Amino acid sequence: MIITSKNNEIFKYLKKLKNKKYREEDKLFMVEKPVVIVEAEGFVPRYIALSETVYKENKFKEIIKNFDEEKIYIFQDNLFNQISDAVTPQGIIAYYEHLDREFHEKSGKYLYLDDVREPGNLGGMIRSADAFGLDGIILSPNCCDLYNPKTVRSSMSSIFRLPIYKMDKEKLVELGFNLISTSIVESVSIRDYEFKDKDIVIIGNEAKGVSDYLMENASMSINIPISEKVDSLNANVAASIIIYEMTK
Amino acid sequence: MIITSKNNEIFKYLKKLKNKKYREEDKLFMVEKPVVIVEAEGFVPRYIALSETVYKENKFKEIIKNFDEEKIYIFQDNLFNQISDAVTPQGIIAYYEHLDREFHEKSGKYLYLDDVREPGNLGGMIRSADAFGLDGIILSPNCCDLYNPKTVRSSMSSIFRLPIYKMDKEKLVELGFNLISTSIVESVSIRDYEFKDKDIVIIGNEAKGVSDYLMENASMSINIPISEKVDSLNANVAASIIIYEMTK
Repeated sequence: MIITSKNNEIFKYLKKLKNKKYREEDKLFMVEKPVVIVEAEGFVPRYIALSETVYKENKFKEIIKNFDEEKIYIFQDNLFNQISDAVTPQGIIAYYEHLDREFHEKSGKYLYLDDVREPGNLGGMIRSADAFGLDGIILSPNCCDLYNPKTVRSSMSSIFRLPIYKMDKEKLVELGFNLISTSIVESVSIRDYEFKDKDIVIIGNEAKGVSDYLMENASMSINIPISEKVDSLNANVAASIIIYEMTK
Repeated sequence: MIITSKNNEIFKYLKKLKNKKYREEDKLFMVEKPVVIVEAEGFVPRYIALSETVYKENKFKEIIKNFDEEKIYIFQDNLFNQISDAVTPQGIIAYYEHLDREFHEKSGKYLYLDDVREPGNLGGMIRSADAFGLDGIILSPNCCDLYNPKTVRSSMSSIFRLPIYKMDKEKLVELGFNLISTSIVESVSIRDYEFKDKDIVIIGNEAKGVSDYLMENASMSINIPISEKVDSLNANVAASIIIYEMTK
């Protein structure tokens, strides 16, 4: 049955999920890249939306065959485009439940993101951390939304694989891990520092850097040595190079 | 004098420069970030456009005082917004001449970008290469436009400092430098390879990788070792990590 009415309840519901407030309420997030839906095997979406065209052309049959039929909703193309967040909708959206975890780890190397605000940066850091086998990423409460469609897109399928935690700054300090801030002053070059178990590197906000509170509570600072003429690296690039060194 | 008419010749001319074709004809490019205009000191823009608001508030007087008055044009805000390429126009645009150079180098380490197509990636690679002191970047003829506003934006002011060259693939092979392709098959980990003078690393197209022609003509291949579960790194991140290793 193809949904053709704007008054359809599931249409109205899925359209609302483009809004962070409603996604949060129901603890859902959207994935629109077919390859990511394939790679997320093992995670069962709560709903799958298809466009009429994709359904009639049987385009993603290899993906869809794994899902319960009753979770699949088919929408007239113009309705589908209204629930999609993509510039070029692919004709498929899977809605997954949030992947929230509690941090109970006793070892490992992590990044702590201290109010990273740009979804593309957050997603990129998740992708790099997964690629290099970092043990996880911990988000401060004021980081941008982990489940923003742009974060999800730029993480590729790594958002499903990498352990990601949320933790406030006070709790981080109490963990008893080795907190390392990133700063250009009074700091050790990452080319010289040998990362070890229980190191947590703090990546600061794009504009403000690491917060004063964490700067004071870190046991040391590291830097990526760059030309004096250059203000900074791209935040995702900087974090990825740190991850690359941490996982040597 | 504030330009208020759509029929004004300089308005019509600057508006056309948003189009690549006209920028190419006159060998000009636009910079809209005030901080980049400051950092580009030593480069003299051919024109400077200001919005009426910025002019009346005397907002960028420290920047503008360095420029010839006769090069400065002031536009009513709604006209200014039509010549701007920014999502949030800052009220200032400087138009610079292209920075084309010929490659006559006998030493140094370089990247060759083999049809990199995404302006944000190109700009990001320029920024990282400048930050780490790479000797330059060489572009294949089918790379995206170096002077695309998005490339310029994401390079920050590095587009003014880093030597950037254009060269076709045949000429690259004839240079006599050590060509290193990037590939996950039959390749050496960048963690194990020691980069040396006259190394040129070839970064492939985002979707297709390094072209067959350059793969065949390279003396060796390198890879960034990542988890088997992850398809690839972000192209800018991958190139930046290679630059980081090249400039150790």
